[in-house]
Amino acid sequence: MIHPEDINHIKQSDRQFIWHPFTQMKQWLDADPVIITEAKDCFLKDANGRWYLDAVSSLWVNIHGHRRREIDDAIKAQLDKVAHSTLLGLGNIPSASLAEKLIQTTDRSFADLRPRLSKVFYSDNGSTAVEVALKMAFQYWMHKGKPKKQQFIGIKNGYHGDTIGAMAVGNVDTFHSTFGPLFFKTKKAPSPYCYRCELGKTHPDCGLACLDAMENILKTDSENIAAVILEPMVQAAGGMIIWPDGYLDGVRTLCTNFDVLLIADEVATGFGRTGRMFACEHAGIVPDLMCVSKGITNGYMPLAATLSTDEIYNAFLGEFSELKTFFHGHSYTGNPLACAAAGASLRIFETDNTLENMKPKTELLKIMLNEIANLPIVGDMRSLGLMAGIELVKDKQTKEPFPWEAAIGWRVALKAREMGIMMRPLGNILVVMPPLSILIDDLKYLLESLKKTIIAVSEE
Amino acid sequence: MIHPEDINHIKQSDRQFIWHPFTQMKQWLDADPVIITEAKDCFLKDANGRWYLDAVSSLWVNIHGHRRREIDDAIKAQLDKVAHSTLLGLGNIPSASLAEKLIQTTDRSFADLRPRLSKVFYSDNGSTAVEVALKMAFQYWMHKGKPKKQQFIGIKNGYHGDTIGAMAVGNVDTFHSTFGPLFFKTKKAPSPYCYRCELGKTHPDCGLACLDAMENILKTDSENIAAVILEPMVQAAGGMIIWPDGYLDGVRTLCTNFDVLLIADEVATGFGRTGRMFACEHAGIVPDLMCVSKGITNGYMPLAATLSTDEIYNAFLGEFSELKTFFHGHSYTGNPLACAAAGASLRIFETDNTLENMKPKTELLKIMLNEIANLPIVGDMRSLGLMAGIELVKDKQTKEPFPWEAAIGWRVALKAREMGIMMRPLGNILVVMPPLSILIDDLKYLLESLKKTIIAVSEE
Repeated sequence: MIHPEDINHIKQSDRQFIWHPFTQMKQWLDADPVIITEAKDCFLKDANGRWYLDAVSSLWVNIHGHRRREIDDAIKAQLDKVAHSTLLGLGNIPSASLAEKLIQTTDRSFADLRPRLSKVFYSDNGSTAVEVALKMAFQYWMHKGKPKKQQFIGIKNGYHGDTIGAMAVGNVDTFHSTFGPLFFKTKKAPSPYCYRCELGKTHPDCGLACLDAMENILKTDSENIAAVILEPMVQAAGGMIIWPDGYLDGVRTLCTNFDVLLIADEVATGFGRTGRMFACEHAGIVPDLMCVSKGITNGYMPLAATLSTDEIYNAFLGEFSELKTFFHGHSYTGNPLACAAAGASLRIFETDNTLENMKPKTELLKIMLNEIANLPIVGDMRSLGLMAGIELVKDKQTKEPFPWEAAIGWRVALKAREMGIMMRPLGNILVVMPPLSILIDDLKYLLESLKKTIIAVSEE
Repeated sequence: MIHPEDINHIKQSDRQFIWHPFTQMKQWLDADPVIITEAKDCFLKDANGRWYLDAVSSLWVNIHGHRRREIDDAIKAQLDKVAHSTLLGLGNIPSASLAEKLIQTTDRSFADLRPRLSKVFYSDNGSTAVEVALKMAFQYWMHKGKPKKQQFIGIKNGYHGDTIGAMAVGNVDTFHSTFGPLFFKTKKAPSPYCYRCELGKTHPDCGLACLDAMENILKTDSENIAAVILEPMVQAAGGMIIWPDGYLDGVRTLCTNFDVLLIADEVATGFGRTGRMFACEHAGIVPDLMCVSKGITNGYMPLAATLSTDEIYNAFLGEFSELKTFFHGHSYTGNPLACAAAGASLRIFETDNTLENMKPKTELLKIMLNEIANLPIVGDMRSLGLMAGIELVKDKQTKEPFPWEAAIGWRVALKAREMGIMMRPLGNILVVMPPLSILIDDLKYLLESLKKTIIAVSEE
């Protein structure tokens, strides 16, 4: 146990010195902060000794549970060799081993599909992995003699990170609209958000009209388009929007036909979260550039990678004088500690048989979400693998949303906390995204508690 | 020792799967890669068992040497509690303790100077720390009722990272010009690069004409300017350009007078590198926003922070409905492992008396650089603390640069490697930036070897 005075000191330090991400600090200062001091498996312990089920994987990053001995040991062993050595002009063992293992992994995921991802460019977080992909796509077309291809197509409700380039291709107004004047111009394609179709259609009668809209943009303008960027199958931060069959492979075909690159941002969906190692597998497609981060280190520490094809990589080869070099890098690119953690995490997929063992949990999640879907304030629920969203509405018939002042998502999350469940909603959308290693009984407890909580809040 | 077959396998994995940062991969593939397998203090060991003096601190990040027991122990102890817990909606002990310690550190550095830095916003690398600062400055003026203040002033030869926003305010053509069409508009002020003054003046007769140029931009346009961003005292990646006295405090005064924020990018200069904890101390000024990264974890793993004043922080407080929240965050914001490492590194400054113990080394560096300055191909040398640049020129009288095809910087670096010194130049500029903990005899060996190497290369 931590001494109460120490707890108070930590709480005060937090309140006095930290500006929290995505947080209205006035609200934060008005509340008593929960300080996490320990974790084990799928549970978090706070400074008062209370344990919580980590229902959102410490913000979508944890895969195999906290304090995995294999990963702890890998980091400790690497500390006894070298914590960091630069990839600018030098190599190191963990970064080379991990790159090999990542490509073996994508080879297994995508088998004989084409294109083939074959090269790994490291960075530190999802935003930078996306910036790397955007810059690679932009510069690729210059080297290919098509320098007019400078624009990107993003998808409504898309989220790709918070740096200026990543925001420019994103479309979540709450996060992005303030900074609009700083963005380069992009095209916006409609979101395949069937519950609230912006084209006013109904799936499947629509015949995927949103795909036609994408085709129209490409028909008109493909000579100016470098790439389409998307979160394959699940637009996560935009509201856990799960795409209908046919959309993602349709976009892949359009990109190929119109000579435009496809960037898949698998930052949230990668590493098993959707039930397949990568979400692109659900559509049987391979992107030209793929961004991964979050789960890559089992949620231990920052690491990201942008995977590219040989076609793109080769376009950057040349004499130094040809100025084809990709001038991008971060100080900790290929950090040995993080790469050692990530290598150990990939091995756990094999030793734990993670993807196979998820299946009954994915089934249970679907069954229990169907029960939750019947509740009066639940408008829609959707899931893929162990990623799920529950959209709360004021009126189930008209789909009228709760006004944001009702803070309905937070009311449910805070009540769930009383039952020992730690969640974080996206506005009116509840997110369920536990570590893939969650025990089936714990998942059942989570969903039953959530159901009770939604009922309790709806009756308030 | 590593088995030769394993070495070959690692080398092949590196060549086959990694796309290295800031590297023309054709050149990389043409050479036999050096794989770093271990490190200790200021030395790196390669896969063949050879040791090198780490003369550029594993790319400007290492401060107290490799494999510091205090930091290794702090990371291992944190692993036994929790590797990561999110700062979105929760707190954790290492991030709160580090934030307190960072503000105590800046309070000590800046004492009674104003403004006072008081809040810490974490991210993962220098680029994101800069993006956070730019976005804070931009949004700050909206909240202050001056929404026209949307532009930034950068300084020629400035480098602030590789994400789109960070590049937009940077001015190193080799890295940035390709991506120009993606940048928001910025103003460019002349660089106080006295050896090659772009205004054609000579210091100190110029009376700091570059400062007048900055003043003219602000006079004309300050109502549209959100902030000036600069690397205080040393423009590092732009060529280890060290500023004349009077420039930095001059810019601070101009910013104050014209109601424009000052963003100091201390990513390369912070944590003692220049002989003071922060480079701003040399000019006796405090910025409104300060970005730190690189040395923060003693070069162990990614972590960054943007420090702000209460004035800026307070402008973002309000009811959620006022939409004043700063919507920015990365998955690993405030990562406990990295914060534990950084806390331990800050403690070493005290136990090692790092800044005091640097002084004789800084003096030695100055003396020996003065000797090196006399060599025929050395045009200029400059240093501040243990950051130094040696600019090689074809003609010492006319300052005519070596053509880039001569790869003069690399020729010196590769020859120095034969003497057991690991360096990485910036074009024609040699960089000397060892860990601050380097032993004085090792520093002497480094500089003597470098001198011999420059002579040898100049006679080739």
